[in-house]
Amino acid sequence: MSTAGHFDRIALVGFGLIGGSIARAARDQGLAKEIVTTARSAKSRARVAELGIVDRVVETNAEAVKGADLVILCIPVGACGPVAAEIAPHLKPGVIVSDVGSVKASVVKDMAPHLPGNAHFVPAHPVAGTENSGPDSGFAELFINRWCILTPPEGTDANAVDRLRAFWTALGAKVEIMTPEHHDLVLAITSHLPHLIAYTIVGTADELAQVTSSEVIKFSAGGFRDFTRIAASDPTMWRDVFLANKEAVLEMLGTFNEDLSKLTRAIRRGDGEALFEHFTRTRAIRRGIVETGQDSAVADFGRPHEQLKK
Amino acid sequence: MSTAGHFDRIALVGFGLIGGSIARAARDQGLAKEIVTTARSAKSRARVAELGIVDRVVETNAEAVKGADLVILCIPVGACGPVAAEIAPHLKPGVIVSDVGSVKASVVKDMAPHLPGNAHFVPAHPVAGTENSGPDSGFAELFINRWCILTPPEGTDANAVDRLRAFWTALGAKVEIMTPEHHDLVLAITSHLPHLIAYTIVGTADELAQVTSSEVIKFSAGGFRDFTRIAASDPTMWRDVFLANKEAVLEMLGTFNEDLSKLTRAIRRGDGEALFEHFTRTRAIRRGIVETGQDSAVADFGRPHEQLKK
Repeated sequence: MSTAGHFDRIALVGFGLIGGSIARAARDQGLAKEIVTTARSAKSRARVAELGIVDRVVETNAEAVKGADLVILCIPVGACGPVAAEIAPHLKPGVIVSDVGSVKASVVKDMAPHLPGNAHFVPAHPVAGTENSGPDSGFAELFINRWCILTPPEGTDANAVDRLRAFWTALGAKVEIMTPEHHDLVLAITSHLPHLIAYTIVGTADELAQVTSSEVIKFSAGGFRDFTRIAASDPTMWRDVFLANKEAVLEMLGTFNEDLSKLTRAIRRGDGEALFEHFTRTRAIRRGIVETGQDSAVADFGRPHEQLKK
Repeated sequence: MSTAGHFDRIALVGFGLIGGSIARAARDQGLAKEIVTTARSAKSRARVAELGIVDRVVETNAEAVKGADLVILCIPVGACGPVAAEIAPHLKPGVIVSDVGSVKASVVKDMAPHLPGNAHFVPAHPVAGTENSGPDSGFAELFINRWCILTPPEGTDANAVDRLRAFWTALGAKVEIMTPEHHDLVLAITSHLPHLIAYTIVGTADELAQVTSSEVIKFSAGGFRDFTRIAASDPTMWRDVFLANKEAVLEMLGTFNEDLSKLTRAIRRGDGEALFEHFTRTRAIRRGIVETGQDSAVADFGRPHEQLKK
């Protein structure tokens, strides 16, 4: 048996959608002799213990990381700095410390100063998720065929990077390495701006005077419902993302607003040709996403459809 | 056997996603003694004949509607006026004429003047669809548990409205009646604006200098891919929708822009509280949509997830 991606003890600080999915997949794949975890609330810790997925659920972050060979912070990005400070004195020499945050430059800036020189810091971001959160929301298949981006600071031990790469590969992910700054630009357009737009339009629909919420819900199958999925994502996580990746999000938003003005003008002027040209061009990206397996080829994302009795 | 929703001969002008789904469902449910259809291109007509779903595929719209008791135009809204003019002289007295267009006021304005006094005009809009188009894209389950909105002009024969209601109910839909103007406002927010936003952001992502298309595709699972589905919808249909429902779309766009400015300002100022409050509020609408069966309760819309070998 290959031991690539294996660790003696893995500590997961936080057991939400991502932490819980890592735990389930790592246990299924036998990647750790022991998985220790903790969560912020007593209620969550009790639920995690009840689920029986990990070997030990402990009360504090400090206790969780003691003796661990791999520590992964699976918490909102705004909490990464304080938690790094809290766990730093308890880390085992040679430990790999990582995270799963959706923003990387701010996490590096917040965490790196606290970590001891004998810890290997390899920030990571698995680009995967669902609209659900909490200890019950994770599942072992979440990372399969999804990308996990590593953003190791310059000078990081190559062996530590390789070990974390092997770990994510064993969870089913494909691994790419880039700088934190480039990561934050890429994710601003592929994830942060889409969430901002979805949160906006769902809010808009909720507050209209001319159309009731009940009508919005009833007739949502015209397209609106696709936006409500990501606008149902965890509010704390997303608040932190927008605060932490402000510059890149504002930059992408500027470009988006220019493009929206252009299409608005075409509608106002009745320029059917400009609309048709734009709507034809955007089909190609969907094809690319389906062809590379990043989305389902089945119509409607493969949503279940009921049958009529004959 | 109840004969509610049954017709001797149904003519479907156009056999794309909606026409093809009506044909499949009507045949499965035995709603017509005969279903006749036509399509604009010889290639589509040949494909429809090959599929063997309908009784007859004819070459012209005029031929299709001859002797039909129910005629449904399943074509882009911009084509409804000219086709109404074309078929008018060939309609059987007492026929019910309907459509499936996503905009209603303009369709009523374009079609009504052409139709003879002995035809019953009952415009309709089934709020259902997928990103696919063409003769092969339809399926019999498309309308199940979806709403079909009827917008009969004042003074329309109540019996004709009832018969069309029964037809859509037999296809699995729930029927609601409203004015064309209110329909166009409701759909502007639940369908047209979401499509415009999705088309915009997919275009934005495609043209960025700092992030390649290949990166956009690879990391689309962060949220972007949800937008690409509706931005892959039929360009001709959507060009026509925006031209035909210009006023309502521009009005909703104005409100959306105000709300986006508000969230942008919160990000710029680092106002985490305002962001958190907004992101919490938008979760409720998703719950309503799932509870009323307008979307799947399964995470990720029920997208299929692969398994890892153990």
